[in-house]
Amino acid sequence: MIQAAGASVWHGSLFGDDELAPLFSEAALVERFGAFEMALTRALGAHGLVEPVLAEAALAGMRDFVPDADAMCRAMATDGVPVPAYVRQLKAAAGDAAKAIHVGATSQDLVDTATAMALRDASGVLAGRIEAVLSALGDLDARFGTHTLTGRTRMQAALPMTVSDRLSAWSTPVSGSLDRLGPVRDDVAQLQFGGPVGLGPDVLGEAGPAIAGAMAAELGLRLPARPWHTDRSAFVAFGNWLSMITGALGKIGQDVALMAQQGIDEIELSAGGTSSAMPHKRNPVLAEKLVTLARFNAVQIGGLHQTLVHEQERSGSAWMLEWMILPPMVEAAGRALIDADAMLRLVKGMGRPG
Amino acid sequence: MIQAAGASVWHGSLFGDDELAPLFSEAALVERFGAFEMALTRALGAHGLVEPVLAEAALAGMRDFVPDADAMCRAMATDGVPVPAYVRQLKAAAGDAAKAIHVGATSQDLVDTATAMALRDASGVLAGRIEAVLSALGDLDARFGTHTLTGRTRMQAALPMTVSDRLSAWSTPVSGSLDRLGPVRDDVAQLQFGGPVGLGPDVLGEAGPAIAGAMAAELGLRLPARPWHTDRSAFVAFGNWLSMITGALGKIGQDVALMAQQGIDEIELSAGGTSSAMPHKRNPVLAEKLVTLARFNAVQIGGLHQTLVHEQERSGSAWMLEWMILPPMVEAAGRALIDADAMLRLVKGMGRPG
Amino acid sequence: MIQAAGASVWHGSLFGDDELAPLFSEAALVERFGAFEMALTRALGAHGLVEPVLAEAALAGMRDFVPDADAMCRAMATDGVPVPAYVRQLKAAAGDAAKAIHVGATSQDLVDTATAMALRDASGVLAGRIEAVLSALGDLDARFGTHTLTGRTRMQAALPMTVSDRLSAWSTPVSGSLDRLGPVRDDVAQLQFGGPVGLGPDVLGEAGPAIAGAMAAELGLRLPARPWHTDRSAFVAFGNWLSMITGALGKIGQDVALMAQQGIDEIELSAGGTSSAMPHKRNPVLAEKLVTLARFNAVQIGGLHQTLVHEQERSGSAWMLEWMILPPMVEAAGRALIDADAMLRLVKGMGRPG
Amino acid sequence: MIQAAGASVWHGSLFGDDELAPLFSEAALVERFGAFEMALTRALGAHGLVEPVLAEAALAGMRDFVPDADAMCRAMATDGVPVPAYVRQLKAAAGDAAKAIHVGATSQDLVDTATAMALRDASGVLAGRIEAVLSALGDLDARFGTHTLTGRTRMQAALPMTVSDRLSAWSTPVSGSLDRLGPVRDDVAQLQFGGPVGLGPDVLGEAGPAIAGAMAAELGLRLPARPWHTDRSAFVAFGNWLSMITGALGKIGQDVALMAQQGIDEIELSAGGTSSAMPHKRNPVLAEKLVTLARFNAVQIGGLHQTLVHEQERSGSAWMLEWMILPPMVEAAGRALIDADAMLRLVKGMGRPG
Repeated sequence: MIQAAGASVWHGSLFGDDELAPLFSEAALVERFGAFEMALTRALGAHGLVEPVLAEAALAGMRDFVPDADAMCRAMATDGVPVPAYVRQLKAAAGDAAKAIHVGATSQDLVDTATAMALRDASGVLAGRIEAVLSALGDLDARFGTHTLTGRTRMQAALPMTVSDRLSAWSTPVSGSLDRLGPVRDDVAQLQFGGPVGLGPDVLGEAGPAIAGAMAAELGLRLPARPWHTDRSAFVAFGNWLSMITGALGKIGQDVALMAQQGIDEIELSAGGTSSAMPHKRNPVLAEKLVTLARFNAVQIGGLHQTLVHEQERSGSAWMLEWMILPPMVEAAGRALIDADAMLRLVKGMGRPG
Repeated sequence: MIQAAGASVWHGSLFGDDELAPLFSEAALVERFGAFEMALTRALGAHGLVEPVLAEAALAGMRDFVPDADAMCRAMATDGVPVPAYVRQLKAAAGDAAKAIHVGATSQDLVDTATAMALRDASGVLAGRIEAVLSALGDLDARFGTHTLTGRTRMQAALPMTVSDRLSAWSTPVSGSLDRLGPVRDDVAQLQFGGPVGLGPDVLGEAGPAIAGAMAAELGLRLPARPWHTDRSAFVAFGNWLSMITGALGKIGQDVALMAQQGIDEIELSAGGTSSAMPHKRNPVLAEKLVTLARFNAVQIGGLHQTLVHEQERSGSAWMLEWMILPPMVEAAGRALIDADAMLRLVKGMGRPG
Repeated sequence: MIQAAGASVWHGSLFGDDELAPLFSEAALVERFGAFEMALTRALGAHGLVEPVLAEAALAGMRDFVPDADAMCRAMATDGVPVPAYVRQLKAAAGDAAKAIHVGATSQDLVDTATAMALRDASGVLAGRIEAVLSALGDLDARFGTHTLTGRTRMQAALPMTVSDRLSAWSTPVSGSLDRLGPVRDDVAQLQFGGPVGLGPDVLGEAGPAIAGAMAAELGLRLPARPWHTDRSAFVAFGNWLSMITGALGKIGQDVALMAQQGIDEIELSAGGTSSAMPHKRNPVLAEKLVTLARFNAVQIGGLHQTLVHEQERSGSAWMLEWMILPPMVEAAGRALIDADAMLRLVKGMGRPG
Repeated sequence: MIQAAGASVWHGSLFGDDELAPLFSEAALVERFGAFEMALTRALGAHGLVEPVLAEAALAGMRDFVPDADAMCRAMATDGVPVPAYVRQLKAAAGDAAKAIHVGATSQDLVDTATAMALRDASGVLAGRIEAVLSALGDLDARFGTHTLTGRTRMQAALPMTVSDRLSAWSTPVSGSLDRLGPVRDDVAQLQFGGPVGLGPDVLGEAGPAIAGAMAAELGLRLPARPWHTDRSAFVAFGNWLSMITGALGKIGQDVALMAQQGIDEIELSAGGTSSAMPHKRNPVLAEKLVTLARFNAVQIGGLHQTLVHEQERSGSAWMLEWMILPPMVEAAGRALIDADAMLRLVKGMGRPG
């Protein structure tokens, strides 16, 4: 899956994620395409579906292969996927060994596997950041937990409570997203090996499952019971997890913006956005942005669910919709975690000393 | 949580679910409010927070209590929730025993707990129906699995495959939704006991946790580590599960509608919708409706994620949005399972005998 | 188009609209089906496509016709639309005159025309309520316009301004929705007469356009240049208008909820929701609900746009999705206007006297 | 408003628009910021609010001004908008003339005005492309209009019809989007001049309205009755228009993909996407992508409507959500028009010669 186009440094400076975006770059995808094809050729050789010598020759060629990116890009507009041009180039470079390459595989196998690897890697980065946010919340609790603030329900003063009470409400869904990660990541980190119409490695004969198993092991992925060309559940579940992260942080951002209002004054931030017209302003830009990113992902998750209606053996239209929606959701979740962490570390005061 | 208004029998005949809708009816909610309050009073008595005699008197009154529904409904428009009027009536009926009622609890505790119970019960109904759909798919496999059809990718003929291959692609995400049910149901089937600002049973003193534990056990719910007034994760995860069900069925419906096209002729249904203008038509209405219900829930899940931005200790606006969105999602999932089952049982032929 | 099912009085008391909901009731739709069929038969007679005597006989029968609602409802589940059963009954009741009925028409013509009439009528109701809200805003301006409050940007105090300044910001998009109404209503208030595959009145021969013109005139609708079976633009534009109304009111509701916070105290409401736990609370339930209804319609409008992908000559799946989404949007807009008006009339104070 | 980040050439080759994307580039926005500030300074001088000599000096400086983009970008992450840093630089470069710059204006005035100009310019490009699509449809009608195909309703064969009938159904909503453009463009092409809290040019005193009028004229924009800092109606209406375009084209794409199915064979395209596994495939990638882009914009429009809840005098969170959503919608509409045109021009045959 390919990240969003239109590079704007301003957009990036507000909403981008320099660590996660590269996971969906062409370079990363092509590298994973190569890893897929090499794992396949190696397994084909090991299980005797191609002669070991031929497999070795093909692997040698693939190790040094650098695709013609321009040609891939031009073909992409026609083919709708980068893989046909990539495989043509790969085979052309391999000469006689071409017949040891891409046997039994199809475009979707490469794209989906590469995306699964990107999401698996992203989940690790996100998990680390979730822990950082929890740690920042813990620090605030240590510093201000015993202070008091006014508990508010339906935006009306209700009863006094401690800062610790509110921090606990903030951290619960954030730590919940860590608890939910395990099955979501296990689900998504799976090999795609379906072949032309999704029948799976059996088309390679008896050795098919072992070949797929070897590929999965080499790529650090799970081997699913059957291919998932048309079962997009794992991506949707991953998107749901992303939006639950941004939602949990959006709640924190909304609360911080409310607490920072003059007249409420229950939080103090050591820095904020400046204004071109009012030099006295210190705008809680990060807090607002957490709300923005939460609402953004909440919108996108609805689009991801639309992709479940995936007709026949491969829906180009549903598949391309994933590509437009999922990478920006990953970046939004990543950036929200960075921003939440930064915002929480700017806090100079919360509540009122008891 | 309260079901959608505006009862139309036509709408119901197309999109309604006679078994699931009652779970969100006023009658069912009031019954669960009663169960909550009785469990609370009983536990208060057992743990000495109110005198056992008083608790017994209150319980006796509650057993026979029938609320004035009209008064509750009128108060609802002002209060935004039915609970304040309900509790006022309950206490008025209890006379001196009123002080053994609703101690430490708040409106949200009753509404959320009642909704959690409705979703838990709904999940059981849905699980049974998912199994029925899987069984119907199994029957088709037994009857037509060896037949052949044309595997199609990007809506173009690709390679021949068996009916069994396609049925396997249909059933995988459906059975996957059963696999996913466990944690989703465990998550959602939890007691809400937060009190006015969500601080939880501790406000009842040392016995608080034991009281909440007793209530949870009596109501057949899990006792969460802390109240979830502002952490709507469990409801969002449940909605995500619902939309993944309808998505899986929408894929089947889309395929059936495509297979039923004259010129494709890969499925034959024994009945279909009639036309007011063209007597020869047999419209695959159920197949189309599965697509409709999938897209409907895909839209709604985006709205449910918006509710995660739940400000301060209770957001009336986010909470009410749940009420508008979640019950229709449950019904859509329920009806899609009924329709899928019915449609699959109408199949007279699939593919071509080898 | 048929209103949502599952009548809950509680839901209705919060989100329903007793004046608009009946526009989508079965009774109203059947009445409009009758009006359509009578206009058609009358025009067929007037233009000599059926013998005037036969037309008269058919009209006489239709005047007294009461459909068997149960039979229609049962057929609905199979046919996916109520019209085939309705027309069968109508023709059965007409005896020999049956051949003067439904000539050249199809189910979609009746359903779409009836929906267009419902939306046209709804727009009139909504326009009246928009004016009431503008009048309420004007009253507030007269009472409190010269008072001052703190202008806030990015939730931070910016500069002092008058209450009149903020009221002006509130009323601009509301009055804008009145300005936008004309073309939206003209667009939607159109006859649907496409016949089986949407070719329009030409299938009736030379007199076709005149027949359609007479029908449109009798029903108070515009005659479009061609049928719009698959062009759902007018409904989408109407839905967009509805959501712009709720959005404009949601902004007001959000501001009121913010102004009502203790510590801000820039608005005072004479009544509010009560709490089951905190007798001192006066919750700004109406203000919160305006936000809820804005976000609800913002979610639904996305679903309505999905219906634009309306395959071939009639998409059952896209069409049914409209039925699930559009009537609740109308009710949400209607109720938001009622609630906004009520809320604004509860205002006892705004800002601080200069 | 700033375009999406993360430039991927692959993404761009599928979904990008090389003509429209630059309208939202930093370069274009900075150029319009400059145009805004120069128009303001010129009008301030002309109306005597600053000394003409000072205005001239400021203008001279602004003509040659090249901002330090890196510094702006760094400030953006803190300020949430590029304007404060831009204005600081502009004033620093102007020396003593700084006091003739940005008088009465605020960040939102520059960003919103620049976005309005971008959308106005985009609408011209889009209008030209809509005409190209209509022309391509006209060409097909001239070539194949008399051919016949099978009209299909609810995905079932209904009645024969001509290719011209279906082309007419395709072109109606496309030409409808041209008809709708006028008011949408007039609405959006408006000056934003609200100042710090949106009170408008009156803060400049009596000459305020004339100054704003002169600015609007110079920038080729309409002068609205009042500032629209919190009234996002025009942007939402523009987004609605964009999604109605992609919806109209998505219907065409869906039909083409259905017509291109083997077994239906009602359209023949001269080229298509290739497959890495099946050399015989000619995938209707452009047709599928039209469906993708329609569903993408249908999702996004829901997010745009969420921005209508724009609290107080400026909502950073709602405003930033516009930036994330609107530019990708413009590009999706632009690319869909390019793709539709290209696809229609690839048609080698439609229907069957009568």
